[in-house]
Amino acid sequence: MSETNRAARSDGDEEQVSGAEVIAQALKTQDVEYMFGIVGIPVTEIAVAAQKMGIRYVGMRNEQAACYAASAIGYLTGRPGVCLVVSGPGLIHALGGMANANMNCWYMECCTPPPVSMAETSAICMAATVIRNAKKPLLIIGKGAAYAHAEEGIRKLVERCKLPFLPTPMGKGVIPDNHPNCVAAARSRALQFADVIVLFGARLNWILHFGLPPRYQPDVKFIQVDICAEELGNNVKPAVTLLGDINAVTKQLLEQFDKTPWQYPPESSWWKTLREKMKSNEAASKELASQKSLPMNYYTVFYHVQEQLPRDCFVVSEGANTMDIGRTVLQNYLPRHRLDAGTFGTMGVGLGFAIAAAILAKARNTGQRVICVEGDSAFGFSGMEVETICRYNLPIILLVVNNNGIYQGFDVDSWQEMLKFGDATAVAPPVCLLPNSHYEQVMTAFGGKGYFVQTPEELQKSLRESLADTTAPSLINIMIEPQATRKAQDFHWLTRSKI
Amino acid sequence: MSETNRAARSDGDEEQVSGAEVIAQALKTQDVEYMFGIVGIPVTEIAVAAQKMGIRYVGMRNEQAACYAASAIGYLTGRPGVCLVVSGPGLIHALGGMANANMNCWYMECCTPPPVSMAETSAICMAATVIRNAKKPLLIIGKGAAYAHAEEGIRKLVERCKLPFLPTPMGKGVIPDNHPNCVAAARSRALQFADVIVLFGARLNWILHFGLPPRYQPDVKFIQVDICAEELGNNVKPAVTLLGDINAVTKQLLEQFDKTPWQYPPESSWWKTLREKMKSNEAASKELASQKSLPMNYYTVFYHVQEQLPRDCFVVSEGANTMDIGRTVLQNYLPRHRLDAGTFGTMGVGLGFAIAAAILAKARNTGQRVICVEGDSAFGFSGMEVETICRYNLPIILLVVNNNGIYQGFDVDSWQEMLKFGDATAVAPPVCLLPNSHYEQVMTAFGGKGYFVQTPEELQKSLRESLADTTAPSLINIMIEPQATRKAQDFHWLTRSKI
Amino acid sequence: MSETNRAARSDGDEEQVSGAEVIAQALKTQDVEYMFGIVGIPVTEIAVAAQKMGIRYVGMRNEQAACYAASAIGYLTGRPGVCLVVSGPGLIHALGGMANANMNCWYMECCTPPPVSMAETSAICMAATVIRNAKKPLLIIGKGAAYAHAEEGIRKLVERCKLPFLPTPMGKGVIPDNHPNCVAAARSRALQFADVIVLFGARLNWILHFGLPPRYQPDVKFIQVDICAEELGNNVKPAVTLLGDINAVTKQLLEQFDKTPWQYPPESSWWKTLREKMKSNEAASKELASQKSLPMNYYTVFYHVQEQLPRDCFVVSEGANTMDIGRTVLQNYLPRHRLDAGTFGTMGVGLGFAIAAAILAKARNTGQRVICVEGDSAFGFSGMEVETICRYNLPIILLVVNNNGIYQGFDVDSWQEMLKFGDATAVAPPVCLLPNSHYEQVMTAFGGKGYFVQTPEELQKSLRESLADTTAPSLINIMIEPQATRKAQDFHWLTRSKI
Amino acid sequence: MSETNRAARSDGDEEQVSGAEVIAQALKTQDVEYMFGIVGIPVTEIAVAAQKMGIRYVGMRNEQAACYAASAIGYLTGRPGVCLVVSGPGLIHALGGMANANMNCWYMECCTPPPVSMAETSAICMAATVIRNAKKPLLIIGKGAAYAHAEEGIRKLVERCKLPFLPTPMGKGVIPDNHPNCVAAARSRALQFADVIVLFGARLNWILHFGLPPRYQPDVKFIQVDICAEELGNNVKPAVTLLGDINAVTKQLLEQFDKTPWQYPPESSWWKTLREKMKSNEAASKELASQKSLPMNYYTVFYHVQEQLPRDCFVVSEGANTMDIGRTVLQNYLPRHRLDAGTFGTMGVGLGFAIAAAILAKARNTGQRVICVEGDSAFGFSGMEVETICRYNLPIILLVVNNNGIYQGFDVDSWQEMLKFGDATAVAPPVCLLPNSHYEQVMTAFGGKGYFVQTPEELQKSLRESLADTTAPSLINIMIEPQATRKAQDFHWLTRSKI
Repeated sequence: MSETNRAARSDGDEEQVSGAEVIAQALKTQDVEYMFGIVGIPVTEIAVAAQKMGIRYVGMRNEQAACYAASAIGYLTGRPGVCLVVSGPGLIHALGGMANANMNCWYMECCTPPPVSMAETSAICMAATVIRNAKKPLLIIGKGAAYAHAEEGIRKLVERCKLPFLPTPMGKGVIPDNHPNCVAAARSRALQFADVIVLFGARLNWILHFGLPPRYQPDVKFIQVDICAEELGNNVKPAVTLLGDINAVTKQLLEQFDKTPWQYPPESSWWKTLREKMKSNEAASKELASQKSLPMNYYTVFYHVQEQLPRDCFVVSEGANTMDIGRTVLQNYLPRHRLDAGTFGTMGVGLGFAIAAAILAKARNTGQRVICVEGDSAFGFSGMEVETICRYNLPIILLVVNNNGIYQGFDVDSWQEMLKFGDATAVAPPVCLLPNSHYEQVMTAFGGKGYFVQTPEELQKSLRESLADTTAPSLINIMIEPQATRKAQDFHWLTRSKI
Repeated sequence: MSETNRAARSDGDEEQVSGAEVIAQALKTQDVEYMFGIVGIPVTEIAVAAQKMGIRYVGMRNEQAACYAASAIGYLTGRPGVCLVVSGPGLIHALGGMANANMNCWYMECCTPPPVSMAETSAICMAATVIRNAKKPLLIIGKGAAYAHAEEGIRKLVERCKLPFLPTPMGKGVIPDNHPNCVAAARSRALQFADVIVLFGARLNWILHFGLPPRYQPDVKFIQVDICAEELGNNVKPAVTLLGDINAVTKQLLEQFDKTPWQYPPESSWWKTLREKMKSNEAASKELASQKSLPMNYYTVFYHVQEQLPRDCFVVSEGANTMDIGRTVLQNYLPRHRLDAGTFGTMGVGLGFAIAAAILAKARNTGQRVICVEGDSAFGFSGMEVETICRYNLPIILLVVNNNGIYQGFDVDSWQEMLKFGDATAVAPPVCLLPNSHYEQVMTAFGGKGYFVQTPEELQKSLRESLADTTAPSLINIMIEPQATRKAQDFHWLTRSKI
Repeated sequence: MSETNRAARSDGDEEQVSGAEVIAQALKTQDVEYMFGIVGIPVTEIAVAAQKMGIRYVGMRNEQAACYAASAIGYLTGRPGVCLVVSGPGLIHALGGMANANMNCWYMECCTPPPVSMAETSAICMAATVIRNAKKPLLIIGKGAAYAHAEEGIRKLVERCKLPFLPTPMGKGVIPDNHPNCVAAARSRALQFADVIVLFGARLNWILHFGLPPRYQPDVKFIQVDICAEELGNNVKPAVTLLGDINAVTKQLLEQFDKTPWQYPPESSWWKTLREKMKSNEAASKELASQKSLPMNYYTVFYHVQEQLPRDCFVVSEGANTMDIGRTVLQNYLPRHRLDAGTFGTMGVGLGFAIAAAILAKARNTGQRVICVEGDSAFGFSGMEVETICRYNLPIILLVVNNNGIYQGFDVDSWQEMLKFGDATAVAPPVCLLPNSHYEQVMTAFGGKGYFVQTPEELQKSLRESLADTTAPSLINIMIEPQATRKAQDFHWLTRSKI
Repeated sequence: MSETNRAARSDGDEEQVSGAEVIAQALKTQDVEYMFGIVGIPVTEIAVAAQKMGIRYVGMRNEQAACYAASAIGYLTGRPGVCLVVSGPGLIHALGGMANANMNCWYMECCTPPPVSMAETSAICMAATVIRNAKKPLLIIGKGAAYAHAEEGIRKLVERCKLPFLPTPMGKGVIPDNHPNCVAAARSRALQFADVIVLFGARLNWILHFGLPPRYQPDVKFIQVDICAEELGNNVKPAVTLLGDINAVTKQLLEQFDKTPWQYPPESSWWKTLREKMKSNEAASKELASQKSLPMNYYTVFYHVQEQLPRDCFVVSEGANTMDIGRTVLQNYLPRHRLDAGTFGTMGVGLGFAIAAAILAKARNTGQRVICVEGDSAFGFSGMEVETICRYNLPIILLVVNNNGIYQGFDVDSWQEMLKFGDATAVAPPVCLLPNSHYEQVMTAFGGKGYFVQTPEELQKSLRESLADTTAPSLINIMIEPQATRKAQDFHWLTRSKI
């Protein structure tokens, strides 16, 4: 190459680099701290330029997971997470993350923190009056309350007025799950008989049975606190709507109860009902947890996990039963420390979310651990991100709760019939995955620690070791009973292996 | 449950089953043989019903891969492949597959085979005249020719008229790559100096440099044979366009050359030029392949693979250099036996495509093997589908050509600078993956065979063993030299492990 | 302004003009002859530049109508018509035109005429065999046949084989409506009992009752001739599909009947049935037409129009009864000389279509007239385009068949009830327009001729005068009987004028 | 028909009617009072059912105009206006209205009035401080303030603090235009030199020159008051953002100035500058208005209109110069009494808006008039709605300010060149409409009153008569000078009438 050509080429390069630098600079100006993605022509230069600006770039293995990670950073930090993808297929792969963020009202693309708005004073008065007159009050704390950092205010309100409360899945931890006023263990009862329900950033979606009978009293009064006018009055017509920043509105409510103090009688029959139901439900689930038969059941697994769970850890979860049962047993003590499949029920979010949380903990140097509780089917969606976890040495503990399949929403009769058909024809049932998959090897393949556990003792030991090692990731593959009554290895279709 | 209730419930169930059965029946009526997907509420019943109808259901791990598999079945069989997903996130995950199928003109949702159309007789005459008058003719055979099953006619045309031809990536195998008239080894030369180019189902897209100078003569005459009117005249204005079924149009052309036989002189200077260039290019690549230094380079790897490649196997490939270099070395002898990242350059398609091909071979009982050649970055997109491969015992051989990263389109200078930055700051370069990842353990985790190979001898042995075992899948993780001049383990960022 | 500034400004202007000129030049290169639109910032310059290139620019009054006009030019000339609109609202207003063109398979954006394709020879043979064996054959000629300029071939086929045929609305004129083999007057009978139906560019959409019983024999065999593979096999599964250019395919069929001549027996019972039905239907409609009561009915109006209709005129029509009944009475003798609301049933297309046809006749200097037959409601959608007609002195004759409302699809009982409600409440029925509107004044407002006619004699006279004046447009507002049994002026709601 | 059949049919009908009734009932429940549309299969029944429920149905002539009317009702009443269209083309025609409503933040589909939110107290304090410290303050009152019914509060703020204000086009009337603090006549000056600008529901879009230099000081501080978080911080970064209901926020601001009263010095140099500029601008425009030459100019026309304009009338306007100049001369005294082409600059909205306003005035029995000021080109988009106006006897006065064309954004030089080209080639310039069109006849055609006016005296007389007649609509066609220097009738292209 002649000197002239080199100079020309170099000029071209400089210009190109400049283009990437302009983008990186713009992101930096918007307070972007984290970028997740997969490089390729022509976006590699942007990642390089971003790193030079001090933006932390995390290279992922599929744009789908990258986008889930970016959206989680937005939720956790309140500042935008960026997802860097090539156009065409890269962008299309990322759509899942965008859809999921949208359904959860997490804004990846919002840059300036919006100013704070408050509810109208008269509506605040009316809400306070409705609460004071409640016979069977209940607060429901949603992820909107977590997102708004309303934890201090809501806790004061609960304690000052002595009100029972329930968290939604991602509302867990706004007030610690072990708070005496938490009635999560009597969830159905509380929803069904409450006469006044205050929703703090919680939507009456399928998770809350749409707020409709028979899961609720027909004349229950809802007080809805939300930042998003479009969410107000969905499904039910609230008695009072408080539009504004949830934290600011909570403070407005507190002022009302400061001016004219009031508390709900702790010895009311409503509290008595709720406490009795909690007691019996907790006993039932402890009974399940203490069963000694093998393979273990869900409750046994989660009780052992809960015993060792660090108070300040992030809990990430996805799956069907794994997520649902896990949520009832695993406790959260801090706001914004639980991330799961959310409103949209998206499978495949877990590893991206866990990576985002771990990157954050590492960047902030908090020493916090991330516990990622996955169903075995759920793990399959983005399992290759284990390499990303190992590449960045993220101290995530992955629990794969492994029942060899996808059993949600299927009754025993249908299941039996399906197995019979499988036996007769040697055709694998659609809900079955490979028995005894060694998912822990997906971790050891990349230098992390792997455990295959079948007993409570093995589970305890592997958890202890994983938590003790603060420098490396691990995956604990926990074998539990499939829904079927026979052992997996009996299955005819497996050995004959037809499709 | 009372008898009445049971009856009612059973009625309900029956109806529900009926709904699923109606869908399954409709698919069967449309000649659907294969269904790929992930079950969940409420589509599990559809998968079960489809199996009862004799449709082969393949449960995958991510809808993205399921959709890629379904689209490949459509291409391979000419009959629709179905992708079964839940609504919401499942559907969004599947969009990548739909976009990829669309960009490659593979129709997943077309059901009846369309009737055959032919080109206008006068246009056929004109095309024949242009060919007869060509000084430097060239045929380019695209995947459209493969899709149209035009192999017999095109081969006759090539041999009767003694014309040089080039396949596009997925056009490989329409005529065997080792046919004496194949000038793939002189590709650039052939494109650059041809004066008449006949495109059989090949588009002048980026893979063919858009048909424009300086990669082509400014006055080159294109004759375009295609089924799709919208593709005719894109980028360049063809001298003749032959709209119709590619197979039927080829036969029309053959009739012309039957009536008035003609052949292109085998001793022309054009043939001489092409043969000389092929010879020198082949020598250069053999020289590269024979290098003894370790780690191996791409050419060494592919030459050893080619030596053992079964004549009738399917070759699936994705990646950057892996796909590009592999394509020049690995030979195809049969039409529709190569599947790769295609027009859209989609990463993540490989395992889905390989599964589709293997399922087909199994269903047809042909004993054919599937060789899936993956870059290490490409493998990460859908690597968890290895469990699917193991679950169905599909005798796929996965080759992961592992250079620890994503190095496409990056020159050495930029690379050096990036490493220097990484060293100074302990920040991992965006293009690097974890060195020495043991991808083969992702296979052993699910009971398949895994090989970690670093030398030509290990590669030969692992291939031999994999090909000998017709009952199980294997993954050969082949370490090659990264583009960098230093060894991976020297990298500062790696041990200090910052983001 | 200083000289320097002027120069700078002038440079800027030149560049701007250049931009417009580049667009105009590109359109000219694509053989664009006509442009319809509404100017505004920044597209005025494009219109000016286009005019300088010799493109005919027609300024319209609403982008909706402009887009309908542009699409009609595409259909009439086979070359693209361009619609020039400002971005934002202009573009949105134009969407109707684009949707309508798309539903009618008229391509506004296709530039190069696509090459001609033919049907497969074996399919042609099969089709000929099916036709030869037909007991009750029928050809249906659609607008696809008109678009393909297949008139000569289809006429030969009809005459050589002595087959009965039916045109679809815009297929009228491919063979003259008064051809002895045209069985339009026995349309229902022909559709219902035919055993073999050959569709030439006609779709089995709602206009053809989807090809299904009871309007058709359950075992009727369809032979479908179409250029568009996606249209083949919609709604019914054809016995034979002939994919290709309709003109080319028709010639292929003709060759078959040349080789082995065959004709359908003119004295068959099928012909006899059809002729009898035609006779009785024609008598019934003549009976209606000859009624002397006033206001006139539809048949009376159209019979008088038909008497004076020039053989070579364009007929444009839209409305409900106006279009449906008008179509049965008004005859077309030339292909591509009828334009109407089409497959999509779009109201508002009439004036745009009429303007396009008149511009074409003027540009080609053929002296042809355009007769635009509008229901009064239909006229309201784009009535202001009358100014456009007058501005360009287009010799269009607009007939507004005025029944004071929108009565489609409403039975007499419902109508009576609606009127009773209107009387009782003084609320105007939704289907009523202002009685005795003088639409002809919308024409005289802009210098054209206007006629308000209530009797056959007035209608005859106004038509005679309009046709005699070849230099100016006219509008004949023809009062006919509303569906109601009482006179309009009795309506209570009218005088009390509530909403 | 047998009795059984009749019953069955009647059942069917009842069900069908029921379907329509269910929809009508649902709309009624959502407080829908007005419905605009065009009936057709199958929506006629819905219109009928809606009328029976007491919803006022207004039948229009094109869905485009119907949708504009429905959106205006939403803005005027704060309750949803409904647009009833048939599917397919009807829906597409309506898209313009939906896009326009969206661009103007008018919500046609919002049903429950959202609860009121307020701004954060600390932000209110900060805003008050910034205002107190302003050297050159300015309030801008947008249509958001009108929509929020914030007129009382904003007026108090203006008067208490003695602040200068400017309305945006649809913000006119929130405080009467003739208020002494209104500095609209010094608009450019006020924007250019203000150091603090408070935006009340006004967006920094193209109408406000995006808030950027050189139209504004580079360091101007914006205080933005808006209900919509997404609008905050667009284009510029505001010094303070007050998110909340504009009325509620204004009251919060007022409280601040109640607590610590403050007023901006009326004798400041800023007020002096503004007053001087207003004086000179008003003098210049009065000078233009008093010109005696014929045809009249815009200023002359609008001054005469302004003289007779009823204080409580609605003013609707669209066009280019007509709307822009009209806005500076025609005064509004009441909030929400001006409707125009808005943010999106949509042509074709005028008649729909006027109809909506008139329907409202009629329903509320206020006796208010609607003055609809249209450019002649603008009138063409929906001119046929004059029939709707006459059918419902709506006392709208339509002013068509007629310069025979579309002259926006075209300088004199270009215009001269265009005319020269037109002369030489007999091609009509794209910006010209038919000279001396008698648009008033479009009104007389349907029984309204029409006036063709060329002098100030004729204009005064026609206005007087139109205003005196409270029972009928009228259209005054006002001839003004075209931009050209020659008379229209000289134009060569006109008489030779080429395209």
